[in-house]
Amino acid sequence: MDHMPQLRIALAQVNPTVGDLAGNADLVVRWARNAVEAGADVVVFPEMVLTGYPVEDLALRESFGAASRSALDALAGSLDDAGCGAVPVWVGYLDRDEVGPRNGAAVLHGGRVVARQFKHHLPNYGVFDERRLFKPGTSLDIVRVRGLEVGMVICEDVWQEGGPVAALGQAGVDLIVSPNASPYERSKDDQRLPLIARRAREAQAPLVYVNQVGGQDDLVFDGDSIVVAADGTLLARAPQFVEHLALVDLDLPGGAARTDADVVDDFSVRRVVLSDEPRQDGVRHPGVIAEPLPEEAEIWSALVTGLRDYTQKNGFRSVVLGLSGGIDSAVVAALAVDALGADAVHGVSMPSAYSSEHSRADAAELAERTGLHFSEQPIADMVEVFVKQLGLTGLAEENVQARCRGMTLMGLSNQHGHLVLATGNKTELAVGYSTIYGDAVGGFAPIKDVPKTLVWHLARWRNAEAEKRGETPPIPENSISKPPSAELRPGQLDSDSLPDYELLDDVLDDYIEGDRGYADLVRAGHDPELIDRVLRMVDRAEYKRRQYPPGTKITFRAFGRDRRLPITSGWREG
Amino acid sequence: MDHMPQLRIALAQVNPTVGDLAGNADLVVRWARNAVEAGADVVVFPEMVLTGYPVEDLALRESFGAASRSALDALAGSLDDAGCGAVPVWVGYLDRDEVGPRNGAAVLHGGRVVARQFKHHLPNYGVFDERRLFKPGTSLDIVRVRGLEVGMVICEDVWQEGGPVAALGQAGVDLIVSPNASPYERSKDDQRLPLIARRAREAQAPLVYVNQVGGQDDLVFDGDSIVVAADGTLLARAPQFVEHLALVDLDLPGGAARTDADVVDDFSVRRVVLSDEPRQDGVRHPGVIAEPLPEEAEIWSALVTGLRDYTQKNGFRSVVLGLSGGIDSAVVAALAVDALGADAVHGVSMPSAYSSEHSRADAAELAERTGLHFSEQPIADMVEVFVKQLGLTGLAEENVQARCRGMTLMGLSNQHGHLVLATGNKTELAVGYSTIYGDAVGGFAPIKDVPKTLVWHLARWRNAEAEKRGETPPIPENSISKPPSAELRPGQLDSDSLPDYELLDDVLDDYIEGDRGYADLVRAGHDPELIDRVLRMVDRAEYKRRQYPPGTKITFRAFGRDRRLPITSGWREG
Repeated sequence: MDHMPQLRIALAQVNPTVGDLAGNADLVVRWARNAVEAGADVVVFPEMVLTGYPVEDLALRESFGAASRSALDALAGSLDDAGCGAVPVWVGYLDRDEVGPRNGAAVLHGGRVVARQFKHHLPNYGVFDERRLFKPGTSLDIVRVRGLEVGMVICEDVWQEGGPVAALGQAGVDLIVSPNASPYERSKDDQRLPLIARRAREAQAPLVYVNQVGGQDDLVFDGDSIVVAADGTLLARAPQFVEHLALVDLDLPGGAARTDADVVDDFSVRRVVLSDEPRQDGVRHPGVIAEPLPEEAEIWSALVTGLRDYTQKNGFRSVVLGLSGGIDSAVVAALAVDALGADAVHGVSMPSAYSSEHSRADAAELAERTGLHFSEQPIADMVEVFVKQLGLTGLAEENVQARCRGMTLMGLSNQHGHLVLATGNKTELAVGYSTIYGDAVGGFAPIKDVPKTLVWHLARWRNAEAEKRGETPPIPENSISKPPSAELRPGQLDSDSLPDYELLDDVLDDYIEGDRGYADLVRAGHDPELIDRVLRMVDRAEYKRRQYPPGTKITFRAFGRDRRLPITSGWREG
Repeated sequence: MDHMPQLRIALAQVNPTVGDLAGNADLVVRWARNAVEAGADVVVFPEMVLTGYPVEDLALRESFGAASRSALDALAGSLDDAGCGAVPVWVGYLDRDEVGPRNGAAVLHGGRVVARQFKHHLPNYGVFDERRLFKPGTSLDIVRVRGLEVGMVICEDVWQEGGPVAALGQAGVDLIVSPNASPYERSKDDQRLPLIARRAREAQAPLVYVNQVGGQDDLVFDGDSIVVAADGTLLARAPQFVEHLALVDLDLPGGAARTDADVVDDFSVRRVVLSDEPRQDGVRHPGVIAEPLPEEAEIWSALVTGLRDYTQKNGFRSVVLGLSGGIDSAVVAALAVDALGADAVHGVSMPSAYSSEHSRADAAELAERTGLHFSEQPIADMVEVFVKQLGLTGLAEENVQARCRGMTLMGLSNQHGHLVLATGNKTELAVGYSTIYGDAVGGFAPIKDVPKTLVWHLARWRNAEAEKRGETPPIPENSISKPPSAELRPGQLDSDSLPDYELLDDVLDDYIEGDRGYADLVRAGHDPELIDRVLRMVDRAEYKRRQYPPGTKITFRAFGRDRRLPITSGWREG
């Protein structure tokens, strides 16, 4: 039977750990072997899979660059030893040459590195510091596999109109593969597919986009790896937030008009021939198109993934958190149970003199619903010593309560080895409505980038999902419906200090995500007095925000290391 | 009397506050008026003086860029109103045009902006993120003052061989002025003068280098403004770490071979004529050459400046710190007294059951020697409640002591409005020898970038200086000479957990400042077991380091926001 030249592509959407060269190399061998056993002709891993992404300033360490290069050479051997030598494997890694550190991707084949290429476009915004870390590449390595020409571009290179993808199109390729480490943001998948489709049409070649999955500090990667045809048609899509091997058989016409020029569009082009024999088995592995998750499920999965990987990759087996009976700690507890299982989650109710009966009851009910380990540690005796001895009143007295809770959690953490979870949300963090060394205590802050109104929304959604599945909804109805309070003085409510959360989140969204200034916010119809009040709180809270633990980022403008604001600042927007 | 064309240059080495556009504009008017009263023909302020430097991500806010542009226009008017309209004043500011944010410098004259130029070379390493923040400039504005052609280059532009300075040389100028915001580092002034001299020779024109002074978060600027002749001879140098107006009369031959080309070396060149009448008074103001400070005095001044400006610019009038009787807290107290005066410094001795009698005595002696406010808050009662109620033992019990001290200081801070100073040094921070939410508590950490051995050295130096001046040495001899201990359990010494500090600092210096890897350290002759032990401690302590407050940076590789390392990392150098 005669048929069109064909390639079986394996997209290895895996979850590496930054810096763990040995562990990541094992991961690559394991998944490459699965791919080869499934008959793959080409295996593609994410950007910098060997080092994990982002390596941040580790990129600048000469010894780390040298270790990555050695690990790459060793990996080529290991793949060969594991029976994968006949199949080219695309592996991202950190290179370092006389020019400097490089964000590289290599093709490993027959126990050797047969091609390598460095990222050309280095993103330097938001969480990306690549111009600080890497020197750009200027070459394109095109590899012939089963008679078909396969080019590659790394991550940001695929976002450039008229960049290396266009150059590959001019040079003539039958297929482009693209290793990526593209962090999750709400609704980012809406941009990804149209972009990849456009780029494939630009190069007139199918495009294979492989993305990292999993959590790394405050970033989470959703996977969502994609294959599109030369006309942009979606052929395969991997599920989000899970490691996954996607297999797709591509029928490729072959014989793209090839130039033998050494230089195309300022890129030096090198061609490497690996094999010319066409694939003969005639079997067709149809691509599977996974549906992207609905919005709430996507956010919930991002938060669960970020929490799970931060905990496990840092070597913790269990977490501890304070349960106030309120909505934030209830949602964090539900996330932790989904991420790690109820047996790994320890909830502590820490009532004070000002805690209401319903708070303690709501905390206990949460524990019962989720099955987490529950204990109670009243803080009255601790607080009393500080307040009396130091003569504290007012805000100083309120803060001591939050700090005694923080110390209690840290004490339990030190004694039993749990990771402490901070339960603050993005709205609190934005306006500085928290106690430093108090409720800000912890190693990780799962909902740090979730605005208060979204916390409620997610709680309702998670409960409804449980109902659908016939399970017990994790979050007590009372924790969702009661008016929020810090309970640091009698009868205190959040609304004593803060505007209504719907209004507040609205202004914050425009100010932070929308990056709008005072005048612009007034024009948008917000109450000038409210804007002024909110902006002053936000502009003053930078020091507090910096002391907050990392937490999963779900928006472009999360608070964390990608927002670099001065502490000492005379700038007040309002 | 006939003489060479002459210009009186004023270098305004001032201390702005980031974001305080109104305050910084007032500062410029005040110093410009002094300069004009002193007969200056040209007044030069530091880089981005109007916004302060570094503005970090404020640069990305459209509203901040717009406010800076408006403030610049208003400042031109204010200068004119203040009688400075006839003298051109070089003012750095944040511009924003259709391309994006710009690091700009403008010439204000006659109530208007008559010239403006954007920084060409954008540093993107260490503390600098300018490729993230600014778009580079492509033009050079040359202004004629009293018949002499004056060009300008901004900061990093002056570090480039064959860059804009060379282009100005080709275009033909009689003088180059350079506004700078170049952060202090140990011995940086050794590089600065030779570089400025080389650049002047390259352009064959005298060069006026004006640097910012003062603290801004973890950065401190030392001033050290310089004027060199066309042959590189040093003509004037301003003192370090103080605001200063340096006046220099330059005899300029004039009539540099001028090209009228609109483009030189890819820079578009624009010439603006302000005045042609030569200066006639015949008076000569000789440049004053201040000696750079000796090494210890320079470091001490940097630390005092950083502490003073962080405190005052953030609106605090007083500081509070724990006095353990040890060397670190003694040095921080001495710095605070030098920075703010004894009346603004509150020292608290917080003995526990494990505190030795000499610790309490040494703390009290320090208070007596310096005159700071002293009080004692025993922590035994606080510790007991936590330990008993939570059943804490071992390290968990040790940490509770440090945390009760941290809570005590924060309680006093909240009650009385003091800024809390953390007293940890760079060595502790490097190896993670500290308690998170314990001794790491504070708003500022003055000796965060000072290795332990240098802490001792500075203590001895400061005492000797006092002796020289016939004053009481601030630091008790016993705090310097006794073996260091955290006193968290009976008989505990630092040497139980850490290598000898001389050895430790030696390895840390090679690993951190020298950026050497394990193999390289072994080759350098360090004991492999020691290296392994130290590197493991350093590589594991990133989370703790991130929770530490900012502190004055005195080395290139300080721990802080300019070192961006992953928390979750499998990389172990050892």
